[in-house]
Amino acid sequence: MTNFYQFRSADRIFTGVRALKTIKDNIHQLPGDIKNVLIIAQPSMLKFGYVDTLQEALSSAGVTSTVRSDVTPEPTIHYVEEAVEEINQDQYDAMIGIGGGSVLDVTKFFAVCHTNEQSVRDMMGIEQIQKPGVPMVLIPSTSGTGSEVTPNSILTLPAEELKVGVVSQYFLPQQVYLDASLTLELPKSITAATGMDAFTHSLESYISNKANPLSDMFAMESMKLISDNILEAYHNGKNETARENMLLGSMLGGMALSAAGTAAVHAMAYLIGGSFGVTHGVANSMLLPHVMEFNYDSVEERLETIAQETSLSKSGNASDVLESIRSLTAELEIPQDLSAYGVKEEDVPDLAVAASNVKRLMDNNPKQMSVEEIEMIYRRLLL
Amino acid sequence: MTNFYQFRSADRIFTGVRALKTIKDNIHQLPGDIKNVLIIAQPSMLKFGYVDTLQEALSSAGVTSTVRSDVTPEPTIHYVEEAVEEINQDQYDAMIGIGGGSVLDVTKFFAVCHTNEQSVRDMMGIEQIQKPGVPMVLIPSTSGTGSEVTPNSILTLPAEELKVGVVSQYFLPQQVYLDASLTLELPKSITAATGMDAFTHSLESYISNKANPLSDMFAMESMKLISDNILEAYHNGKNETARENMLLGSMLGGMALSAAGTAAVHAMAYLIGGSFGVTHGVANSMLLPHVMEFNYDSVEERLETIAQETSLSKSGNASDVLESIRSLTAELEIPQDLSAYGVKEEDVPDLAVAASNVKRLMDNNPKQMSVEEIEMIYRRLLL
Ligand SMILES: NC(=O)c1ccc[n+]([C@@H]2O[C@H](COP(=O)([O-])OP(=O)(O)OC[C@H]3O[C@@H](n4cnc5c(N)ncnc54)[C@H](O)[C@@H]3O)[C@@H](O)[C@H]2O)c1
Ligand SMILES: NC(=O)c1ccc[n+]([C@@H]2O[C@H](COP(=O)([O-])OP(=O)(O)OC[C@H]3O[C@@H](n4cnc5c(N)ncnc54)[C@H](O)[C@@H]3O)[C@@H](O)[C@H]2O)c1
Ligand SMILES: [Fe+2]
Ligand SMILES: [Fe+2]
Repeated sequence: MTNFYQFRSADRIFTGVRALKTIKDNIHQLPGDIKNVLIIAQPSMLKFGYVDTLQEALSSAGVTSTVRSDVTPEPTIHYVEEAVEEINQDQYDAMIGIGGGSVLDVTKFFAVCHTNEQSVRDMMGIEQIQKPGVPMVLIPSTSGTGSEVTPNSILTLPAEELKVGVVSQYFLPQQVYLDASLTLELPKSITAATGMDAFTHSLESYISNKANPLSDMFAMESMKLISDNILEAYHNGKNETARENMLLGSMLGGMALSAAGTAAVHAMAYLIGGSFGVTHGVANSMLLPHVMEFNYDSVEERLETIAQETSLSKSGNASDVLESIRSLTAELEIPQDLSAYGVKEEDVPDLAVAASNVKRLMDNNPKQMSVEEIEMIYRRLLL
Repeated sequence: MTNFYQFRSADRIFTGVRALKTIKDNIHQLPGDIKNVLIIAQPSMLKFGYVDTLQEALSSAGVTSTVRSDVTPEPTIHYVEEAVEEINQDQYDAMIGIGGGSVLDVTKFFAVCHTNEQSVRDMMGIEQIQKPGVPMVLIPSTSGTGSEVTPNSILTLPAEELKVGVVSQYFLPQQVYLDASLTLELPKSITAATGMDAFTHSLESYISNKANPLSDMFAMESMKLISDNILEAYHNGKNETARENMLLGSMLGGMALSAAGTAAVHAMAYLIGGSFGVTHGVANSMLLPHVMEFNYDSVEERLETIAQETSLSKSGNASDVLESIRSLTAELEIPQDLSAYGVKEEDVPDLAVAASNVKRLMDNNPKQMSVEEIEMIYRRLLL
C-alpha cells in the first residue's frame, strides 16, 4: 500500500458494565475547571434511572448538572439552532450526551456552538468549524452509530429533504463511556436496526476504496463481534455479554468508518431518511443486502476474507456472506418495503439523482453506481 | 468481563511510505498558531536527509524550525534537565520528535516542560504533570517502542541505577507520522532488538492481568504483523512492505500496552538497563523466552489462541509459540549473555529485589514471581 490514511478517535474510552459510575473519578481529567455541566439525555435514560446515576456520580465529584431531554430521533437543523440559542444563555464547562446517535450528534453541536460564533449553517460541510468546543463526554445507549468515536454529526434538513453529514475534528469527544447496562432495555426493533447499522459501518469500511490496514482491523473485529452477538441481543436482550459485545462492535465500527468512510448504502440511506423519515438504522439495513449484491463482483475477494474470519460463513465462500446478510435481515425482521414509508415509483428518479450526489460517500464505493443502477436498487424495495 | 478498562492514543495518525512530506498539509491543524517549532532529531535522520525533507515541508507551510540532535540512546534525567533549561530560553509553538524511542521520549518531556513550571523530578510518577505541553508531533524511526502512541516516557536515573517509566496523559501527541521509509537503513541488530521489543509489548499486553477486548485486538494484530515480517526486515532491510508492516505492528503494540500494560519482562529489563546499560530492546529480547517459560502454565490458553491466529505455530499448539520465540531469538542473533555487560553472580540478588519492586508492571504479570524466581531467571542469562 502506498496510500496515505489517517486515524483519529476519542481521547479516552472507559469500558465495562456499569462504567458510567466511574465518571466521578475521571471527570476532572477533562481540560479546564469543571464545575457545571449540561447533560443531554435520551428520555429513556431518565426513565430507567441512568441519568440519576450519572448526576449522583457527578455530584460526588463536586460537579453540578442540568438535564435537557428534548432531542427527538434523527434531529433537524432547526432543533439544533433553537436549542443552541437557549443553551448559550447559560454557561457550561462541559457537555455530556447520554443516548443514541441522535443525542450524541446534537451534543457535538451544542459543545462547539458554546464557544464558536459561527451559525450552525456555517458549520455544515467538512472541517468548517473554527475552534474547539467545550469538553465533551459521550455515552452511547444504542449499538449503534459509533458516533461516540467519529468526527461526524448527521442532521436532517427538512426543507431540502436531506440528511447531511457534518465532519469536524472538534466533534471528537474527550471521554467515552461504553456501559452495556444502558442498552439492556433497548427494544427489539431498535436493537435490530441499530445493530445492522453498526455492521454496515464495518462492512462498508472494509470494502471502501479508502480501506487501509488500520480500518480493516477495526472493521473485521467489529464484524466478528456483531455477527456473533446480534441474534442473541435481539432474542434475549438482557444478555449482558451479548450487549457488551454489541457495544464494543459498534464502537469499533465507528473507528473503522472514521478511518475509511462508509459508501453507497449510507449515501442512499441519507435520502430516504431525509425525504421519507425512514430512521437511519432501518434505511441502512433495508439497503445493505441489495447494495452488496450490486457490489458483489468488485468485492468478492474481500468477502472471502470475511467468510474465512467470521461466523458469517461455514465453508469460507464469499457468497455465504451475502446469504448470511439476507438471512440476518429476515430473522431480525428488518422492514423490506419502502412503499410503507410513502415512497412511490415516481419518487425514485429524484431520490437516485440526489443519492448519486452524495459524493463524499459514493466515491468510497468499490463499484461505481450510475443513476439508473441506484434507481434499480431503490425499486427493489418498492414491494 | 466485568472489569473496567480504558484506551487512549495519539489524536491523529498519518500513515504511508513518505507520509512525512504530508506534514505540510497538516501542521496547521495543531492547536494554536504554529510559526516556529523545535525538531528533536536522531542523528541518523539528519544523515539520511529526513530532517531536510521535514524542514522543507514545514517551510513550505510557513513554519520555521530549529534542529536539536544531541539525544543519546536511553536518555538520562540529567540530559533532559539540562536540555530543558536551554530550550526554554527560546519560545517554540510545537515540538517535533523524529527518531527512535529515545528521541520520542525526550520530546515528550521537552513539550510539557515548555509550559509547566514543575521540575523534571516532580514529574516522575503517574499523572504528576500539571498541564498540557505545547503541541507535539512524533515520528518514529524504529519499530520499536510504540512510544508515538503511548502516554509513557522512560528515563534513566544513573545515580539510582534505575530506569523509570513516567506516565502522563500529556505525553500523548497530537499527530503521528508512520513513514516506513525512515526505517529502511535501520541496522540489523537494532531491527532485531527493537522488533522484539515491539513483539514483547504485544505479547505482554495479551497475557497481562489487565488485558481486555480492545488491547487483545491491538496485541493480536501486532503479533501477526511482527511475526510475519521481522525475519524479512532483518535479513532484507530494504523491503519496504516488511518495514511498513513492522512499523504498523510496533504502533499497535504501543496501543496494546497503553490499554493493558506490560509485565515481568519489562520490569526485569528496566533493571539491567538502568544498572548495566543493556539497551531496552536487547534487555527485553534476552528476557522474553525465559520469562515466558516461567509464565507458561498460567498462560497456556492464551498462547494457544496465539498459536491458532498467528504464524508462530503450524499445528496450533501453545508450546509452539514458546519454541518459535526461542528460534526467532536465535535467528535474530539476540545477545544471550548478561555477563558480557558486566553483570556478576553477586549482582543478582539486588537486581531481583529491585525488579520485584517495579510493582506497576509486576502486578500485570499473570503469574506471581517471587524474588527467588526472578533471581533464577537472571541467572539463566549468566552464561
Ligand atoms: N455521527 C455518526 O457517526 C453517525 C453514524 C450513523 C448514524 N448517525 C445518526 O444517528 C442517528 C440515529 O441514532 P441511533 O440509531 O442510535 O438511534 P436514535 O438515537 O435516534 O434512537 C432511536 C430510538 O431508540 C430509543 N433508545 C435509544 N437508546 C435506548 C435505550 N438504551 N433503551 C431504550 N430506548 C432507547 C430512542 O428513544 C429512539 O426512539 C441518526 O440521526 C443518524 O443519522 C450518526
Ligand atoms: N515510551 C514508551 O512507551 C517506551 C516503550 C518502550 C521503550 N521505551 C524507551 O525507548 C528507548 C529505546 O528506543 P528504541 O528502542 O527505539 O531505540 P533508540 O531510540 O535508543 O535508538 C537505538 C539506536 O538506533 C539508532 N537509530 C534509530 N533509528 C534509526 C534509523 N531509522 N536508522 C538508523 N539508525 C537508527 C539510534 O541512533 C540509536 O543508536 C529506551 O529509552 C526505552 O526505555 C519507551
Ligand atoms: Fe450509519
Ligand atoms: Fe519496551
